[in-house]
Amino acid sequence: MGIEVKNIQKSFNKKKILSDVNFELEPGKIYGLLGRNGAGKSTLLSIMANRIFSDSGNVLLDGKSVFDLDEALGQIYLMSERNLYPEGTKIEKIFKLTELFYGSFNYDYANELADKFGLDVKQKFGKLSTGYRSIFKLIIALTVPARYIFLDEPILGLDANHRELFYRELLDNYVKTQKTFIISTHLIEEITNILEHVFILCHGEIVIDGDVEDVLKKAYLIAGPQKDVDDYCRGLNIIGKENLGSIHGNYVYGNLDDNRILPDTVSVERMDLQKLFVNLTNMEETKK
Amino acid sequence: MGIEVKNIQKSFNKKKILSDVNFELEPGKIYGLLGRNGAGKSTLLSIMANRIFSDSGNVLLDGKSVFDLDEALGQIYLMSERNLYPEGTKIEKIFKLTELFYGSFNYDYANELADKFGLDVKQKFGKLSTGYRSIFKLIIALTVPARYIFLDEPILGLDANHRELFYRELLDNYVKTQKTFIISTHLIEEITNILEHVFILCHGEIVIDGDVEDVLKKAYLIAGPQKDVDDYCRGLNIIGKENLGSIHGNYVYGNLDDNRILPDTVSVERMDLQKLFVNLTNMEETKK
Repeated sequence: MGIEVKNIQKSFNKKKILSDVNFELEPGKIYGLLGRNGAGKSTLLSIMANRIFSDSGNVLLDGKSVFDLDEALGQIYLMSERNLYPEGTKIEKIFKLTELFYGSFNYDYANELADKFGLDVKQKFGKLSTGYRSIFKLIIALTVPARYIFLDEPILGLDANHRELFYRELLDNYVKTQKTFIISTHLIEEITNILEHVFILCHGEIVIDGDVEDVLKKAYLIAGPQKDVDDYCRGLNIIGKENLGSIHGNYVYGNLDDNRILPDTVSVERMDLQKLFVNLTNMEETKK
Repeated sequence: MGIEVKNIQKSFNKKKILSDVNFELEPGKIYGLLGRNGAGKSTLLSIMANRIFSDSGNVLLDGKSVFDLDEALGQIYLMSERNLYPEGTKIEKIFKLTELFYGSFNYDYANELADKFGLDVKQKFGKLSTGYRSIFKLIIALTVPARYIFLDEPILGLDANHRELFYRELLDNYVKTQKTFIISTHLIEEITNILEHVFILCHGEIVIDGDVEDVLKKAYLIAGPQKDVDDYCRGLNIIGKENLGSIHGNYVYGNLDDNRILPDTVSVERMDLQKLFVNLTNMEETKK
């Protein structure tokens, strides 16, 4: 059960975007898909939702390929950055079109959300600001009867109040429906608490695939005088360095649980997900 | 000298967006323009850049109306969320078009920035992701020879690494050129340190207009047992309330410097700009 992504490859104009992507989504979890600008997150989600073709590989939904499964489209919903709606169509009309396509649509819930976010459903899609376009698309995504919901940059242009409201509504929806969500976002700090599992996509491959809790247990900042820090970190997986005056910091990803002795001059603290992401992807960048 | 915004009013479809907007920009400062989704920030900036008409009021550049000043267009540059560039045109070609329009263009600087952000200038505009569209527009905005640069959601879709890089490049540009910047953004926490002066737009009016330092000096959280907090806050300008278990918090905006006595049970701390913004605009929302 669930979704399996197997050996997905994709190039555009001879440039390799996804070189070999593999992972699984279990039903009823909230996943994060993180990556730098241009890492191929949108491309990957579009392939998984059968909106564009991959060059090779497969995506299985409950063991069957989504590429030749018509009903897969009704099971997977992709909210994307692209604006696929006709500019002159009113929001309430798009609700109707969505019902026609999916066979059902929870109007009460959609109108309740529109009300909370202050979206006028009599407005035309083309007249909405960037923030309200996102809000409208979020409402559709939370309301459609699909089991797998892919949210690509769902909070683009949302103000701080609306972002908080979205996180609350998403969790509320998740608790009630036990759907599977995959969220791609650049506001990592804000989303960390909501995610159960995280994928980090870098240079066409998944470089991190783990439960958020487990991943963060292995993410450390070791700080102190340079020599002591370097001595302590010998053999560890250093993914970044930073200085604050004469204090030197090494960012480490991996287990520390061996026999090394921590000098009094050196401190160990945890790194948050955003810091881990920035360091990991910067490191991969310089390796290129 | 500078820009004066006087009594600007604007309605769309009989709905009042800007009811009476007044403020001034002095040369050589970095301003923040904050507001909820739909508050009219983009409308205001478009009027100031003479891209759309106001219903009444005026915008003066060095004392002359920008509405009938042809050369004002060369002095003011608006980077907006709207994508005004032809989808099929290559980035390097748009650099050339910008030079034709503004009379000069710093190609070395533009290419240096493109290199730092990883933007391929041979790419067509229409092929760029949301993040890279922002990056491209940022590069133009930092490079054009205008004296007043308006940035409307400049970091839309930018990843954490690119956002940090942008803040650094913006400050570097500002130190070198002493241009005037006005930045509209929803990522308030990240931008606070860069801003010298802040405007908060709410329900068509500027409700806060002050140096960031002065504004934050008046933004407090008073916390403790409800009765003690309410006693202490009597007569103060309470803009929000929040509870954490049995601890009650009042958000206050204004000076505390009178003869009130702080009970031992009550603590006073500073609020950051994002918290101030959320509380102020929520309060105005409920007043509506």
